[in-house]
Amino acid sequence: MKPNGIITLITDFGMSDPYVAMMKGVILSINPAAIVVDVTHQIGSGFITQAARIISETFPFFPRSTVHVAVVDPGVGTARRLIALSAEGHFFVGPDNGIFWPVMERRGAEKIIHLTESRFFLPYTSHTFHGRDVFAPVAGHISLGVGLEEMGTTITDPTPLSLPLPYSKENILYGQVIHVDNFGNLVTNIGDDELRKFLESGRPHIHVGRLLVYGLNDIYADVDRGQPLALINSSRLLEIAVNMGRACEYVGVPNENIVGTTVMVRKS
Amino acid sequence: MKPNGIITLITDFGMSDPYVAMMKGVILSINPAAIVVDVTHQIGSGFITQAARIISETFPFFPRSTVHVAVVDPGVGTARRLIALSAEGHFFVGPDNGIFWPVMERRGAEKIIHLTESRFFLPYTSHTFHGRDVFAPVAGHISLGVGLEEMGTTITDPTPLSLPLPYSKENILYGQVIHVDNFGNLVTNIGDDELRKFLESGRPHIHVGRLLVYGLNDIYADVDRGQPLALINSSRLLEIAVNMGRACEYVGVPNENIVGTTVMVRKS
Amino acid sequence: MKPNGIITLITDFGMSDPYVAMMKGVILSINPAAIVVDVTHQIGSGFITQAARIISETFPFFPRSTVHVAVVDPGVGTARRLIALSAEGHFFVGPDNGIFWPVMERRGAEKIIHLTESRFFLPYTSHTFHGRDVFAPVAGHISLGVGLEEMGTTITDPTPLSLPLPYSKENILYGQVIHVDNFGNLVTNIGDDELRKFLESGRPHIHVGRLLVYGLNDIYADVDRGQPLALINSSRLLEIAVNMGRACEYVGVPNENIVGTTVMVRKS
Repeated sequence: MKPNGIITLITDFGMSDPYVAMMKGVILSINPAAIVVDVTHQIGSGFITQAARIISETFPFFPRSTVHVAVVDPGVGTARRLIALSAEGHFFVGPDNGIFWPVMERRGAEKIIHLTESRFFLPYTSHTFHGRDVFAPVAGHISLGVGLEEMGTTITDPTPLSLPLPYSKENILYGQVIHVDNFGNLVTNIGDDELRKFLESGRPHIHVGRLLVYGLNDIYADVDRGQPLALINSSRLLEIAVNMGRACEYVGVPNENIVGTTVMVRKS
Repeated sequence: MKPNGIITLITDFGMSDPYVAMMKGVILSINPAAIVVDVTHQIGSGFITQAARIISETFPFFPRSTVHVAVVDPGVGTARRLIALSAEGHFFVGPDNGIFWPVMERRGAEKIIHLTESRFFLPYTSHTFHGRDVFAPVAGHISLGVGLEEMGTTITDPTPLSLPLPYSKENILYGQVIHVDNFGNLVTNIGDDELRKFLESGRPHIHVGRLLVYGLNDIYADVDRGQPLALINSSRLLEIAVNMGRACEYVGVPNENIVGTTVMVRKS
Repeated sequence: MKPNGIITLITDFGMSDPYVAMMKGVILSINPAAIVVDVTHQIGSGFITQAARIISETFPFFPRSTVHVAVVDPGVGTARRLIALSAEGHFFVGPDNGIFWPVMERRGAEKIIHLTESRFFLPYTSHTFHGRDVFAPVAGHISLGVGLEEMGTTITDPTPLSLPLPYSKENILYGQVIHVDNFGNLVTNIGDDELRKFLESGRPHIHVGRLLVYGLNDIYADVDRGQPLALINSSRLLEIAVNMGRACEYVGVPNENIVGTTVMVRKS
């Protein structure tokens, strides 16, 4: 697998501090031809499951053999391992805290390496910024064609991540809100396939807090302005929205608590 | 017109979600040499006129034959057309909702294409994310040199956009605030030429809500710290500012309502 | 010193306005092969010392002969000079308002040029946006190899910047909070070397407002969740943090006033 020079970054660093720029400087110092793409730097502090979900949804839209770097690393400096892996034709670099679990779970990783060869790190490695001192230089070297196996030792026991899964009980499908997007739309963990299997040929009644939606629509404009609707979104997940409005304001739950709110689907 | 490989993006997606990165992944999958530049992703949700104004002000600073992609598309999935056009030596790709009207109005588009050739789209096209599934791949193909006419059928009736225009009545020039920038400056829709024509050799008295400014200055530091002033800004529009302060806080109108506030210019 | 084509940008323009994109368009119009990297655009309006500190911390992570452009320029349009300089193997372009002082102070600038040759500017130069009209095109030309001395006249009296320095008095080391980062960590102006010299073999007691921390740790996870700690951060500065929490919320000072808060270090 020959790298294509593209490196994506996802972190919880925000956009005000120079931390992301330092990582880009390190990468360009190693591979001046690297193309660095920001996925997002607005992950909630230490919110590993959110980053894990976004990586798993986003990487397939990049060309094969892109290098994806993830730095959501509340345990920075502890004994947690630093890893690089190849899976589904892409490379991934970050902490071994479950952040790549959804990627590995799908079809398994081809190879997972515990990064121990410090000659691929910055000469001086801080205790608190492995994104800059380890992950950025490692990604730069991978993008130049250095093989993963040169960088450390193979492991087979990556740290798993426990993600909430939907389940059905007494003819109700239970899921939860996993994300509120920029438009206030409520993204759930209920996938297209699970929903169809549960509904068979029935029509869904969906409850999220105070919001109640009947049926499934194709597009936001299927309902009147200000009306709620449910649809299968562009990531093939059940999403609750309000046409030209912000669904998150109708749930009756403070915004900071909406992620995790139960979604109940009945059928008729 | 040979494309130069540069593609700009303007959306209302914000910086937290991975939507913009997905578009970049799609573009780089088609044209690995594309140079993607973010204009802004902080357009208010569905605020077409704001995006239209920014595109029209920004594109002339890019090299000729840049491709500009705009995804502010509250009608995504409805019957609204998806278009690509060439105008003033640049390419534009987005929904036919008026977002490129100010660009076309100036000197007219050379060619406007209704995008119908789905072989230039992603193989699977969602109902709710045409930015990723249609506009990004189309922009990638244009940046590789695919001709607009290969991508669909010519149209001559693009959707217009009604932008508020200044007018004078009983010796008062009326305009409105169209933007509050990052510094709290109030950008109006009154252009340099219109203002000069109205003022002749007079001196302006400018009212915006509770703010009253006399005369025109060249630079912010022409007045004392904390004092208001008016000037012709770098986009050749009348702007009301406060030196080292935020003019938007002196208008007496809540921030979310300042855009649209009437600006009155008298002369003496 | 041959430029490498990389140009970094740091401004107080925010991410909503198209000002940064206009600068990128201007740069790419002059050097289509330029690689433009954002350091941050979220500098507080006119907060020169914050930008100065970030530039000085960030530039060493970029390859030698990168061009760094800084536009935090509250005096735009006044008689303040526009300068370009070379120092420590890098190029810097911006207003002569002290923003590059920490870079020059360290080992001195090799050459400082007052930018007077307007053929390297945009043909039309506004009074209020020198970032776009002067600094961006000058950076573009430098990245193509134009020598600094062609662009103006050498000066030797750059405007200094007065940055707060730590000092010790009656066996107490006094410093201040100079930055609150995205994680709520309190970065101080007390460097690793100064702290060690003051402590000798003692153990520090650190006060910041209501926060009291004993000792120095290596990593955040050295203390229990929610507990405060002090460490030397990845920029070799004393930093006060709370493991998995936001130290800024424990100081007892409103967030907007924390920068500048006194830090007192005693020893035992």
